Amino acid sequence: MKRIGVMTSGGDSPGMNAAIRAVVRTAIYHKLEVVGIRRGYQGMIDNDMSVMQTTDVSSIIQRGGTVLKTARSKDFMTPEGMKQAYDNLQAQHIDGLVLIGGDGTFRGANAFFDQYAIPAVGLPGTIDKDLSGTDFTIGFDTAVNTAVEAIDKIRDTADAHNRIFVVEVMGRDAGYIALYSGLSCGAEDILIPELKTDMGEVVTRILDDKRRKKDVHIIVVAEGDDFGNAEAVKAVLTDSVPDADIRVCVLGHIQRGGAPSMADRVLASRLGYAAVNALLRGEKQVMIGQINNEIVSTPFKEVVKQSAQIPADMAEMTVVLTA
Amino acid sequence: MKRIGVMTSGGDSPGMNAAIRAVVRTAIYHKLEVVGIRRGYQGMIDNDMSVMQTTDVSSIIQRGGTVLKTARSKDFMTPEGMKQAYDNLQAQHIDGLVLIGGDGTFRGANAFFDQYAIPAVGLPGTIDKDLSGTDFTIGFDTAVNTAVEAIDKIRDTADAHNRIFVVEVMGRDAGYIALYSGLSCGAEDILIPELKTDMGEVVTRILDDKRRKKDVHIIVVAEGDDFGNAEAVKAVLTDSVPDADIRVCVLGHIQRGGAPSMADRVLASRLGYAAVNALLRGEKQVMIGQINNEIVSTPFKEVVKQSAQIPADMAEMTVVLTA
Amino acid sequence: MKRIGVMTSGGDSPGMNAAIRAVVRTAIYHKLEVVGIRRGYQGMIDNDMSVMQTTDVSSIIQRGGTVLKTARSKDFMTPEGMKQAYDNLQAQHIDGLVLIGGDGTFRGANAFFDQYAIPAVGLPGTIDKDLSGTDFTIGFDTAVNTAVEAIDKIRDTADAHNRIFVVEVMGRDAGYIALYSGLSCGAEDILIPELKTDMGEVVTRILDDKRRKKDVHIIVVAEGDDFGNAEAVKAVLTDSVPDADIRVCVLGHIQRGGAPSMADRVLASRLGYAAVNALLRGEKQVMIGQINNEIVSTPFKEVVKQSAQIPADMAEMTVVLTA
Amino acid sequence: MKRIGVMTSGGDSPGMNAAIRAVVRTAIYHKLEVVGIRRGYQGMIDNDMSVMQTTDVSSIIQRGGTVLKTARSKDFMTPEGMKQAYDNLQAQHIDGLVLIGGDGTFRGANAFFDQYAIPAVGLPGTIDKDLSGTDFTIGFDTAVNTAVEAIDKIRDTADAHNRIFVVEVMGRDAGYIALYSGLSCGAEDILIPELKTDMGEVVTRILDDKRRKKDVHIIVVAEGDDFGNAEAVKAVLTDSVPDADIRVCVLGHIQRGGAPSMADRVLASRLGYAAVNALLRGEKQVMIGQINNEIVSTPFKEVVKQSAQIPADMAEMTVVLTA
Repeated sequence: MKRIGVMTSGGDSPGMNAAIRAVVRTAIYHKLEVVGIRRGYQGMIDNDMSVMQTTDVSSIIQRGGTVLKTARSKDFMTPEGMKQAYDNLQAQHIDGLVLIGGDGTFRGANAFFDQYAIPAVGLPGTIDKDLSGTDFTIGFDTAVNTAVEAIDKIRDTADAHNRIFVVEVMGRDAGYIALYSGLSCGAEDILIPELKTDMGEVVTRILDDKRRKKDVHIIVVAEGDDFGNAEAVKAVLTDSVPDADIRVCVLGHIQRGGAPSMADRVLASRLGYAAVNALLRGEKQVMIGQINNEIVSTPFKEVVKQSAQIPADMAEMTVVLTA
Repeated sequence: MKRIGVMTSGGDSPGMNAAIRAVVRTAIYHKLEVVGIRRGYQGMIDNDMSVMQTTDVSSIIQRGGTVLKTARSKDFMTPEGMKQAYDNLQAQHIDGLVLIGGDGTFRGANAFFDQYAIPAVGLPGTIDKDLSGTDFTIGFDTAVNTAVEAIDKIRDTADAHNRIFVVEVMGRDAGYIALYSGLSCGAEDILIPELKTDMGEVVTRILDDKRRKKDVHIIVVAEGDDFGNAEAVKAVLTDSVPDADIRVCVLGHIQRGGAPSMADRVLASRLGYAAVNALLRGEKQVMIGQINNEIVSTPFKEVVKQSAQIPADMAEMTVVLTA
Repeated sequence: MKRIGVMTSGGDSPGMNAAIRAVVRTAIYHKLEVVGIRRGYQGMIDNDMSVMQTTDVSSIIQRGGTVLKTARSKDFMTPEGMKQAYDNLQAQHIDGLVLIGGDGTFRGANAFFDQYAIPAVGLPGTIDKDLSGTDFTIGFDTAVNTAVEAIDKIRDTADAHNRIFVVEVMGRDAGYIALYSGLSCGAEDILIPELKTDMGEVVTRILDDKRRKKDVHIIVVAEGDDFGNAEAVKAVLTDSVPDADIRVCVLGHIQRGGAPSMADRVLASRLGYAAVNALLRGEKQVMIGQINNEIVSTPFKEVVKQSAQIPADMAEMTVVLTA
Repeated sequence: MKRIGVMTSGGDSPGMNAAIRAVVRTAIYHKLEVVGIRRGYQGMIDNDMSVMQTTDVSSIIQRGGTVLKTARSKDFMTPEGMKQAYDNLQAQHIDGLVLIGGDGTFRGANAFFDQYAIPAVGLPGTIDKDLSGTDFTIGFDTAVNTAVEAIDKIRDTADAHNRIFVVEVMGRDAGYIALYSGLSCGAEDILIPELKTDMGEVVTRILDDKRRKKDVHIIVVAEGDDFGNAEAVKAVLTDSVPDADIRVCVLGHIQRGGAPSMADRVLASRLGYAAVNALLRGEKQVMIGQINNEIVSTPFKEVVKQSAQIPADMAEMTVVLTA
């Protein structure tokens, strides 16, 4: 192996730059050339790529976003797109790939690599922490900390006004961001897709609290909750809680940006470093994850999107601490 | 004067606690007793008040929200409510008041003090910076910095995806928060109520940029903009910009919370200190503001809500720097 | 068990309040009374304690420091001190204890509990992450993130001036804070007690870099490094690097304060919740930790202070990424 | 005027990048070419400069440091150095200059421009706020906010341990950073060069506080205080306060880095915009400042370094609020 490509794909997540940096530095350390492919699979098709040096990854470890940009590519879903991508990789003499992204990135990889034999290693880069094969994904820790800082601010104004706030956080089909940010902020209710949401119970608790002169109530709801989103929750409360002063905050895309946290930088560095070593060792078509503080490889085909795996003690604790 | 009351009223703003602290410490320094009135005028009516000591304001200078809580009171709009409030103040032997809040707070004061002669001094506490009689209001600097941090994060993900973002910030009828946060974040467009919004121009600029391969575009829109809010802006863009990938972020109540910035802590301290001294000097029914770094008193009746006063050089600069 | 005591002891760490909150709320949920003991073992001796309600832990999850204060107690090292402490616990009808602190806290516990039979459960609260029996300690994640934010700022000015900075971080005998913060900030050198520091190599690398026109160099050094502290490192560089512009920053106690990070809040909540349950289950004289995402009990007598356990891949990576 | 140069010089300060951006964008808007000169006057001498486009200042408004780097140049103090610098500017066809820096930058300018007639406009870029001709300098607001965040953290651990902290902040001969950060953090003592420091009084106050069971005491001391630095203060306290637990924190260079605050970004943008317009209007050898929210020009020769101008009400307030 002499020349590898690296790209980011799918939704961006804080720490992707730290991963790119680790890949580039590790590759160069091992005398490999590295080509940065811009905008994910679309950049492969458009031949939008160029060689990266150590200076290209200087002072990016602390930056949000991705210097290689990212995209979702429809063209890559077609046989013609894949062929074009492969031809371009061949023309660039790229004989190994590091793919940083979420489950869509690896699904895209499967179809491609069934046909074109180029060794590829993936890194889990998504704020959603919704992938098997790893305990954490690059960006999750930062995203939740961003949500936590936002909800802390909302707590200040909620306390000042004795208000009810419904705060919607990201996570797509997974409730991790909601669960961890809700626990961290002492939310009075946390609604996630993995646990059946009973709005009747939520209303009862609010009414009980009001009777005990506790009017402040912060409900953190996952965007993918089974009951519905923040506006849906607000609608029920408006109908059921007399004189309630209810506000909705949808935290939105601030959760995707910002300087990555320490945990994400270390995770990204470690996985990026491991990815290049895996390629050099001859591993291919695997995602590199971290499980119980150890580096683990999982074949792309076995990497699945999964909702939150909540340990039993945490589920019970959630009930007790929000009671 | 032996005993003064202090309260926060209207929308909360970061730095209100710093103001309360300064009032309490300055009053005690001058051997005055201080009574904290909770939930603004409503607390006057409900007799929800108690004496404060230095220890009650210990380590609150850095906290968002208000330890005295705040509210908008409908009861205080009635003659009965006002009478009850006055009777309670009398019963508590309160012979001076410090009122921290926005224009509604001082409008409420006018009707009350026309009838009941108790010296009162106001402090401008609102994130909106929409009051005459002061260059800055307590909370504005923090709120804009919070918006700036959020938009910086949005910039990361906008850059990564080459996306258009429409970011809505607070400020009610005033465009200051939008103007200052937009300038600070290098927004490609800033839409405020004080300047006629021409969506046709916005669309033209976006289309021009796309032609020059610049796809990222952040539009900061004031919630009170003359054209409409973020969703209204998005609707136009969706119709007019082919293949645009447009996202909306409504920053919302995070702008009201959080540890106050240095500027807000210093301003709140200075105004709170000045307010007690003004009462002791015999001033009454005035708002204490800061203009050109000096303390200035303005009669409540002359304090008006006003939209942003934008110096000519800043208006021109806004055009040049977003071009 | 009807009434338990909770205290914080030793050096404070961010997240201690989140742990106290979890203990209090879990205990009350299980109909236990909770007594807060102030200033650790010294408060036991001074009978400085009082019953806590849910409202006493309201809105403390996001606060640094500890509402119960903390101290190191010399009196508790004496038989008389221990006897007095025990008598006070008896008088208060406390029949269980939750102790939050570091290795000194548990060493103190050993002597005491050899003599006085009162069930006690410990939680690892220290920024140093230097305890066996748990993967993480409460406060570590926050402390490293604080160091990272500081070093990112130093990077800005180092880059602007092409300077060498020697940054000293906390961690006592353990190099974790230095290792994780150094990796996160792309430090050019990381000096920790667990790896033999060779200043000759450091100097050589700096001189090589200078030859390649790279003048910026950030060295993160653990306060307990085998070579010496930041000033010692600077002294060598001053002698060995011609024309070097070298600055020292000792980050110091900022690493102990601040709002805890998400990871510390979740960890503290989880361990605090588990501690009360452990007491109720009859466990005693054990520290509750988290290993591989599971709750684990370790007898106090087996909890030892330990330096950083660095996985082989991370040690190698550190060499490659700082090269 | 067809081609202008822009440079940063002296100690870096947050917001310098925002100023560079405004200069470049405004110049290009007016069809001027802009040359970025690296490392201040030294770069003039070394001919280290290149043309800048709008894309070169893209997404730098939020970055600390300076993309043009900065330096102090000994060569520029010599006639030969100045001649070389001028020759290079001539060769580059630069017929106007924007200089961003502190008092040393303008002193350097004076000697140079006495001899070589090239129009130059300066911007006050220093965290110290120690220049006449402007109310604020670029970087001051950010630096103080950084100090405030750090001291807030120190307050957490000071409160937890009942400790005395002596915190040293930057500012060279000016006490502004100490005054504003001390007021913002509720410091128990603030020692600045502009007010005679009486350590006897400080000790008396601490002893009084101890008698009243208040053991926590945070002393913010300016690096240029007339009594001495933090270690000198600690030495006195160690001798005079029995059983005191005293810690020193020197905040150091973190105060120079980090994303600039809103106030610094707006100030830098406004002054950078004004500087180019001033050059176009034919102004020369003046510093552009902001006084009472208006843009003001002051001849370089009248710009003097000055210590803090503290309004009388703030000096009195400082006594009252720290009492």
